[in-house]
Amino acid sequence: MLGERLKNVRKNHPLIHNITNYVTVNDCANILLACGASPIMSDDEGEVEDVTSICSGLNINMGTLHQGTVPAMIKAGKRANELGHPVLLDPVGAGSSRLRTQTALRLLEEIRFSAIRGNVTEIRTLARGAGASHGVDADMVDRVTEETLDGAIRLAETFARSRGAVVAMTGVIDIVTDGSRTFCIRNGHSMMSTITGGGCQLSAMMTAYLAANPSAPLEAAAAAAAAMGLCGEKAYERMGELDGNASYRNYLIDAVFRLTPEELDAGARYELR
Amino acid sequence: MLGERLKNVRKNHPLIHNITNYVTVNDCANILLACGASPIMSDDEGEVEDVTSICSGLNINMGTLHQGTVPAMIKAGKRANELGHPVLLDPVGAGSSRLRTQTALRLLEEIRFSAIRGNVTEIRTLARGAGASHGVDADMVDRVTEETLDGAIRLAETFARSRGAVVAMTGVIDIVTDGSRTFCIRNGHSMMSTITGGGCQLSAMMTAYLAANPSAPLEAAAAAAAAMGLCGEKAYERMGELDGNASYRNYLIDAVFRLTPEELDAGARYELR
Amino acid sequence: MLGERLKNVRKNHPLIHNITNYVTVNDCANILLACGASPIMSDDEGEVEDVTSICSGLNINMGTLHQGTVPAMIKAGKRANELGHPVLLDPVGAGSSRLRTQTALRLLEEIRFSAIRGNVTEIRTLARGAGASHGVDADMVDRVTEETLDGAIRLAETFARSRGAVVAMTGVIDIVTDGSRTFCIRNGHSMMSTITGGGCQLSAMMTAYLAANPSAPLEAAAAAAAAMGLCGEKAYERMGELDGNASYRNYLIDAVFRLTPEELDAGARYELR
Repeated sequence: MLGERLKNVRKNHPLIHNITNYVTVNDCANILLACGASPIMSDDEGEVEDVTSICSGLNINMGTLHQGTVPAMIKAGKRANELGHPVLLDPVGAGSSRLRTQTALRLLEEIRFSAIRGNVTEIRTLARGAGASHGVDADMVDRVTEETLDGAIRLAETFARSRGAVVAMTGVIDIVTDGSRTFCIRNGHSMMSTITGGGCQLSAMMTAYLAANPSAPLEAAAAAAAAMGLCGEKAYERMGELDGNASYRNYLIDAVFRLTPEELDAGARYELR
Repeated sequence: MLGERLKNVRKNHPLIHNITNYVTVNDCANILLACGASPIMSDDEGEVEDVTSICSGLNINMGTLHQGTVPAMIKAGKRANELGHPVLLDPVGAGSSRLRTQTALRLLEEIRFSAIRGNVTEIRTLARGAGASHGVDADMVDRVTEETLDGAIRLAETFARSRGAVVAMTGVIDIVTDGSRTFCIRNGHSMMSTITGGGCQLSAMMTAYLAANPSAPLEAAAAAAAAMGLCGEKAYERMGELDGNASYRNYLIDAVFRLTPEELDAGARYELR
Repeated sequence: MLGERLKNVRKNHPLIHNITNYVTVNDCANILLACGASPIMSDDEGEVEDVTSICSGLNINMGTLHQGTVPAMIKAGKRANELGHPVLLDPVGAGSSRLRTQTALRLLEEIRFSAIRGNVTEIRTLARGAGASHGVDADMVDRVTEETLDGAIRLAETFARSRGAVVAMTGVIDIVTDGSRTFCIRNGHSMMSTITGGGCQLSAMMTAYLAANPSAPLEAAAAAAAAMGLCGEKAYERMGELDGNASYRNYLIDAVFRLTPEELDAGARYELR
């Protein structure tokens, strides 16, 4: 089932508009190409509406946030909303500074997001700020483990319903939910935490999956998360004794490039709740 | 003949000033080092004149264009013009937004470029906007193929003559012309379109070739294009069954690092019209 | 002795705040992860105080300097000073433009740096501008060699004493001094000069070593420099006949990832003066 989502990315070649940080931007561009999509990066207020109009999806990532870029994010988001393009928010660093937290909450007010992807801290920060956490996460730790899984799912589901969006809370276990159905995905490898930008890359790729599968956003987001985790496993298997995180980064993108729909169907490990 | 141009890059070690985008900037720096040149990246209006003065070539790339950077581009370009340094324009995304198209046309008015390198869409956008297309490209498709080659050459030649610059319209076939003589270069590999920044990298490297070969700009630009294409072939030959676009990107820069003048002379496939 | 410094990085996992350039930022993030630390990149004036407060070290790098970022550098530096976090300055390009030189001198006035790392030109520019060169370097060439070593050491020591900081003047021979004790480190490989950002990467990693070893800043800085040089050697040993500077860059970060404290102790080649 998830393989079909990848097949559509490779068939439709969606062009994705990225407003993103300068740390991981090159990896985001290359992973979009690897999965079958194409990237455009543009963040100047004077052109983002033009640019997003020729694309079929918009990825807004708050890494290395500049206050001057926020108006461009909002303009692009509103235009993408008008055009019916999927818009994804990656609230990088929400919770680490007031600027990031407040900006994320403002973006949630101004733009209708199709999907929000972050780690548990970022998602919790947004859920609380947007009044959608209802205390369910009071005793949650920072990592989603088997012990904290139920609470994490409730948090993600409540937030997803309140926003009308797919929420992808990724970590050791990835939770991807639209508020009524929830994928718990157990792909991935601990080596993924040794490279910068794994989350950013997943957000970019998830936007491509959403754009190529407009009628199935939940499955599209889940397929992207499973594909990323599976490629993290494949990249680890390829490592030699001299390889470290730099080679691993390359192997991960290489694995995304090589991944077939059949491999994704065979290798995805998830339960649907 | 083209190998001589590479030899001069390795002998003269030109220092190249780059005002470029944050997506592919690291690759541009590394490919400049790979071919024997050195990079400086600087785009603040307060220092670009100082920086370009200690360099021997200037590469202006419009990717991730910021309106605030345009004055720095113009200042640097004017100073480089005064100093007689070659200046190259890579009009990334001209045609994708009004801002990019108008900025490219403004740069063409303010700065005397030695070379302009882009894909067929970008070059056509500039040629039309600058009144140099004369309708010759009315029925051109977006890719330069054997069928559309003659029309593409006429477009590039007309534009080159109108600007007094070398025009490099690159794609499956690379057309490099000064308006009177034209190289059609048939190096390259389709894998090159699966990485981000191949065009940006070529522009950076072409600026180094121009700076190291001041008396032969057409041959210098053609040599850079042939070298890039040939290295794209060599990088493909090196790929293993697990390699994807991330490894390919590394192999491409590695091949530029290893390329000898003799290999370039032996491997370049072109006709001079 | 130096291995102990690495051991502390891997034990303490310091989170390092980087205000750095967009050319080499991804490599800086990945080398911090490789050595056992974690990176945050943030340069907006509206959040740098928040961000640096949750970190344990601050790395200020002047590459691709933007005038608009200088206030953020100063705010972050002052806050890090208040919190007692180590702050490192990498004055990239000091001496290449008045803006860079003046900005570096202003940062030296406003912020108390724990360490300053640069090449001989950058350090000399700062020492002169800050009135600490005393003419000792009048006949110094641009590279530190055996012939110029004594003069270079005197320059670094004088500057270190005047600033109350560790000064790391790196090149073929690395000089790391606090003004009273001086490490001369002879690790490294000429291949390191063929990649962009080796200096930036060392500065990021050195900040992590400083943060993880608060009671031994001189040894921490020396250990980082020796580790970088040793990994440059290991990366070279790994190169195959098709490898160039792109693969070398990956091998270098891989080697940092794999380096053990025991290997660092065994492989570091230095004299303490």
